[in-house]
Amino acid sequence: MTDYRRLRVALLGAGAVGSQVADLLRKHADELADRAGAALELVGIAVRNPDAPREADLPRELFTTDSEQLIVGADIVIELMGGIEPARTDILLALSSGADVVTANKALLATHGPEIFDAADQVGASVYYEAAAAGAIPIIRPLRDSLAGDRVQRIMGIVNGTTNYILDRMDTEGSEFADVLADAQRLGYAEADPTADVEGYDAAQKAAILASLAFHTAVPLEAVHREGIRSIDRQTMDAARHAGYVIKLLAVCERLADAEVDSPTGEAISVRVYPALIPREHPLASVHGANNAVFVQAEAAGNLMFYGAGAGGVQTASAVLGDVVSAARRHIAGGVGVGESTRANLPVVPIGRVTTRYQITLEVSDEPGVLATVAGILSEGRVSIATVEQTLVPAGDVAPGIARLVIGTHTAREQDLSDTVDRLAASGVVGRVVSVLRVEGN
Amino acid sequence: MTDYRRLRVALLGAGAVGSQVADLLRKHADELADRAGAALELVGIAVRNPDAPREADLPRELFTTDSEQLIVGADIVIELMGGIEPARTDILLALSSGADVVTANKALLATHGPEIFDAADQVGASVYYEAAAAGAIPIIRPLRDSLAGDRVQRIMGIVNGTTNYILDRMDTEGSEFADVLADAQRLGYAEADPTADVEGYDAAQKAAILASLAFHTAVPLEAVHREGIRSIDRQTMDAARHAGYVIKLLAVCERLADAEVDSPTGEAISVRVYPALIPREHPLASVHGANNAVFVQAEAAGNLMFYGAGAGGVQTASAVLGDVVSAARRHIAGGVGVGESTRANLPVVPIGRVTTRYQITLEVSDEPGVLATVAGILSEGRVSIATVEQTLVPAGDVAPGIARLVIGTHTAREQDLSDTVDRLAASGVVGRVVSVLRVEGN
Repeated sequence: MTDYRRLRVALLGAGAVGSQVADLLRKHADELADRAGAALELVGIAVRNPDAPREADLPRELFTTDSEQLIVGADIVIELMGGIEPARTDILLALSSGADVVTANKALLATHGPEIFDAADQVGASVYYEAAAAGAIPIIRPLRDSLAGDRVQRIMGIVNGTTNYILDRMDTEGSEFADVLADAQRLGYAEADPTADVEGYDAAQKAAILASLAFHTAVPLEAVHREGIRSIDRQTMDAARHAGYVIKLLAVCERLADAEVDSPTGEAISVRVYPALIPREHPLASVHGANNAVFVQAEAAGNLMFYGAGAGGVQTASAVLGDVVSAARRHIAGGVGVGESTRANLPVVPIGRVTTRYQITLEVSDEPGVLATVAGILSEGRVSIATVEQTLVPAGDVAPGIARLVIGTHTAREQDLSDTVDRLAASGVVGRVVSVLRVEGN
Repeated sequence: MTDYRRLRVALLGAGAVGSQVADLLRKHADELADRAGAALELVGIAVRNPDAPREADLPRELFTTDSEQLIVGADIVIELMGGIEPARTDILLALSSGADVVTANKALLATHGPEIFDAADQVGASVYYEAAAAGAIPIIRPLRDSLAGDRVQRIMGIVNGTTNYILDRMDTEGSEFADVLADAQRLGYAEADPTADVEGYDAAQKAAILASLAFHTAVPLEAVHREGIRSIDRQTMDAARHAGYVIKLLAVCERLADAEVDSPTGEAISVRVYPALIPREHPLASVHGANNAVFVQAEAAGNLMFYGAGAGGVQTASAVLGDVVSAARRHIAGGVGVGESTRANLPVVPIGRVTTRYQITLEVSDEPGVLATVAGILSEGRVSIATVEQTLVPAGDVAPGIARLVIGTHTAREQDLSDTVDRLAASGVVGRVVSVLRVEGN
């Protein structure tokens, strides 16, 4: 055994991920020391209740309720409590005490990222957060380092395992949303309160983190447009399949030209989370179950995809430990940490100024002239039609005399599209706007 | 414009990748400076003939034939000449002069990696080589950093675009190898002398690099078992498709337990390149055209896949520039470079001691008792049969009275399998051993 320099590692939180991290730090101590060039000594675990049952068998004496004492004097602080406070205060204390910080806290980074990165910059420390964006999938280093000499044009990410699990089962089994959700809750794929996943809040936090990194811009969470998947019913899913699409909850981060922005280059970005149609042949379409994937389009590198397990205690622990080894190597190598680059500082445009393609499904009266009226309203609204299909409506599904129109549009501006849909709804010939979905990925 | 510290960047070589790198360095200078925290000043390009035509429009005064003078005094040296010499001498000179080195030279790293990494360690410099393993796909940082706290069990990579292009077209079009190769040469997907690609030399170099990194072990190129794809004909491809497989040239890097190795943990590794059957539903099966993908199985992280363009001047330039920005950040941050970790130093087992599954295709006399004889020889050879299929042989394809047996085995040891195939060939009941292929990915 080489006699390595010892680094004091403090762990905050011992839930599913924290327990795994503590367990692996102890179990693979020799191997980790060889890789880090330093012995990683777990000096303590701060928790609210030291006597609570844990997923891993950890010595009682490691646990403490005094996080402050633990943090001061640590070389590396791993924050796995989640939530805003006390995580924020603890991380700022760690940085001001000269520790590097490893965190998986997406909620905190998406809301207080700039404050935390500034605090790290001031003392020359680093904040590592590979586990905060797509679980075990290495995406932070590729974006921050590997693509640092390139220009990212677009990221499309399946970054929430719960919703992908639900949508995938709805697609493959033809099941209803509520049934699959109940089953997912029973199997542990969804929380008792599924709001954060199903309404897209979790994906929006990750989108803010990915967009900040990819576009060298601090993207506030409030700037992320967010829609969940509750509106996706079996019928919508079936229609998508019939048209050669699959529906995925996508986090889209996009560089775009925008005439209205006050930016020297005319460049802006859009960051949005919504269920979208993607073609069956797109690599993201074959991401099944609770898996995640991040599809990146860069100017020089072309199309890249990163795929893997999105969540799970042991998978996330892998990402956290990778960060711990990186932090240790930096401690040993010396020098200051590399700060977050936010110098591009691109404006984030509101959803109304985004352009994409759409698929609009309408119920209309089955009479002569209706299609002409619908087409006229679309044209007036600057929405150009690419395809129209009058779908077969199974008997009994809707009243007789009603037909279903599925309209695929060319690229249109969201505000134009949404105004046009309002006018269609009020036109008298449209009985019901069944769905309006964006089409991404082609 | 911030007044950044200037870093002197020297470029060696101005072929397809070098020209793109020089062009992008100049075109995106401001953006790269913001990201690197330093102005990256391209001070010169060493080439054999400064007057040769280039793919990018670069000032004549940048070119020089005096690489030594250019290297000494540079902060970052980018080596894109390829080949062993003078690349090796130039890189060693750069490191000893205190420069960080960025290279895409897989041949050099696969043969002289330890010498170069040792030289970097001695002066505290870093060698970056993201472009050497899978073109634009970020795989080096994920393996070295993101998975540094995990244990990689297996890597299966499609790391050669030319052979994937050829095999993919054979699979989708039912074409013959020679026809597709000729077409690939015409279209620029294959070199006039395709040996390096088609015989697996290029993939073997990349396999050595990936295995070294993943298993913290210096893997010499000679230890990589290598087979090319010339033996794959249309008939073999058709049979694979019929059985639910696709044939890909795989670089397999695997951690395994081996009773014969002199290693304290009983652990060893295998590194091998060969055409293998993989199930159609495996993520690697849907990697089409000249694309690359690296599938990684890690103890904690589970299955990960990294997908993208494998080669091409501008794609590779993206990986090179990412490394240049990393090198610049390290220069600004101070501290010594993180060396290559080879402390695990696991033995590499010869191919004979590897275990995998096989598919054996035989032509046998169509007589009673033949299958019993074949089964007996397999059983004596410790090769356990999983499936047997007597395939329909189209009339005229083989002589009458000859049947084709396709035997799928359970996991067997390569040496046992190959001895057994020899005995089958000599048994008198087997007319011809049509093919023996490994099955990977399930």
